[in-house]
Amino acid sequence: MKETQDLFPTRLERKLGMFERIDPVVHSEGEQRKGPLSEAELDEFERKGFLSFEGFFDEDEMAAFLEELGDYENDDDLKLSEGTILEPSKQEIRSIFGIHEVSERFSRLTRDPRLLAMVQQILGGDAYIHQSRINYKPGFKGKGFDWHSDFETWHSEDGMPRMRSVSCSIILTENGEFNGPLMLVPGSHNYFVPCVGRTPENNYKESLKSQEIGVPDDASLRDLMIQGDIEAPKGPVGSLVMFECNTLHGSNINMSCWPRSNLFFVYNSVENTLHDPYCGNRPRPEFLANRKDWSPLKPAK
Amino acid sequence: MKETQDLFPTRLERKLGMFERIDPVVHSEGEQRKGPLSEAELDEFERKGFLSFEGFFDEDEMAAFLEELGDYENDDDLKLSEGTILEPSKQEIRSIFGIHEVSERFSRLTRDPRLLAMVQQILGGDAYIHQSRINYKPGFKGKGFDWHSDFETWHSEDGMPRMRSVSCSIILTENGEFNGPLMLVPGSHNYFVPCVGRTPENNYKESLKSQEIGVPDDASLRDLMIQGDIEAPKGPVGSLVMFECNTLHGSNINMSCWPRSNLFFVYNSVENTLHDPYCGNRPRPEFLANRKDWSPLKPAK
Repeated sequence: MKETQDLFPTRLERKLGMFERIDPVVHSEGEQRKGPLSEAELDEFERKGFLSFEGFFDEDEMAAFLEELGDYENDDDLKLSEGTILEPSKQEIRSIFGIHEVSERFSRLTRDPRLLAMVQQILGGDAYIHQSRINYKPGFKGKGFDWHSDFETWHSEDGMPRMRSVSCSIILTENGEFNGPLMLVPGSHNYFVPCVGRTPENNYKESLKSQEIGVPDDASLRDLMIQGDIEAPKGPVGSLVMFECNTLHGSNINMSCWPRSNLFFVYNSVENTLHDPYCGNRPRPEFLANRKDWSPLKPAK
Repeated sequence: MKETQDLFPTRLERKLGMFERIDPVVHSEGEQRKGPLSEAELDEFERKGFLSFEGFFDEDEMAAFLEELGDYENDDDLKLSEGTILEPSKQEIRSIFGIHEVSERFSRLTRDPRLLAMVQQILGGDAYIHQSRINYKPGFKGKGFDWHSDFETWHSEDGMPRMRSVSCSIILTENGEFNGPLMLVPGSHNYFVPCVGRTPENNYKESLKSQEIGVPDDASLRDLMIQGDIEAPKGPVGSLVMFECNTLHGSNINMSCWPRSNLFFVYNSVENTLHDPYCGNRPRPEFLANRKDWSPLKPAK
């Protein structure tokens, strides 16, 4: 169902200036704010739009996941499946979407009790998986991702109504200075930057390789960087970055020989399920935006 | 004059493996090794193939250079001159070559007494400018430079016979983690990596924008990175990086809003002046490889 007024106009032909966020960043209030994240961590998340935890999972715990990903690289059927995106060179896997549906092991990880409790604390209640993916970013060949707000895309192309969703990026190979780590603009989640340009149908087929539509303008980006700078959390295998759905982020080309493989789980509040896409196009495929199962996640045992 | 045997075969159709360096790294011996660089610094240069100095020049000293560069950005004649390379988008200046010939101020800087004495100490005697350039790398728009050895190009395309040349990169805008700083592979200067592929005539017209020929293979690069890692010296305006002509280096896209403008002076030993290009092509233009004035630089007063 499309609402009468679109609170986050974007993908228009004329440029609109950025405006201040209208949704809370941490959605829990009062007693509900208590949980695995300390008040100081919640404050930091509210201020910066992300939190990072070095070595959140043990390296040993992660070994089995890495092994599984190695198998996928040699799986020709998976390479041809719609949820698998190849690098522009078509040689290497860039991303596999819906990884929690491909694999029971990854599905359980989305329901890791510690992780899920933190997500629920931020979202103020129950959550489901809106999207999951693994980004491989192989050594030498892995291209970058230009600056963007996930929410801007999810709102316009998937019909996500409000900013009440959080991404967890789990580091599967050490993220260092040179293998194209996730970069974020602290504080950028506090502004919505409308982007210029109508969205073509099936835009995702291009945008998952190289984003042209839904890219914030240079002037707004510059303002937000001058205000908040850029940060790139580093860490060993098992490190975790949680970032708010509207935090501007991107990553550079991997010019090193070391792959930068990160797992992304996107949790959306069950109070924030999808409408029709606000850009007016047909909904994107299920592997990008879950429309079939919004039942709350229960912690894995 | 072409020598009968080419000691550094490259740009061939078949891949040759990398081999160990045959030239000294520091060319001074005995008493001549004494100079502005300490024995420890010379050792580090020999080991890593580069040295970096934070704030080597005062920020105040650099202000006049920056102002001059600002003027060049608005100089349409200069934009059209052969020594000026535009970004692939053709909007922004990527590099201006021969900057010491365009400007007396930059010419004097090449003869800065402290700088020149360090260069002479490394090269074991008198030096002249083989090439000078400024790389602008504007915010958001500045593309990177893929991994390469300058010597590999200067040998094959300019006829530089041996490894007896050093580059000084002077930082004109703060170089940080996110604006595409110079990256180097420590220890890589100790190996020559022959590159595959015949050199087209006028290759420089493409290679200065995006290098396709003279790029080391992934396997050799990986070996050298695993052995030596990657380093990216950072620093404020006026910082200096001196690197050996065969040290593998590159830089990433500038995804930040902050320009990364660096000045490069290439000093070559007067004992190492140019022959005919070893790749067999016509020599490249003067702005890339000085063939007309090999007289030794004298310190500016």
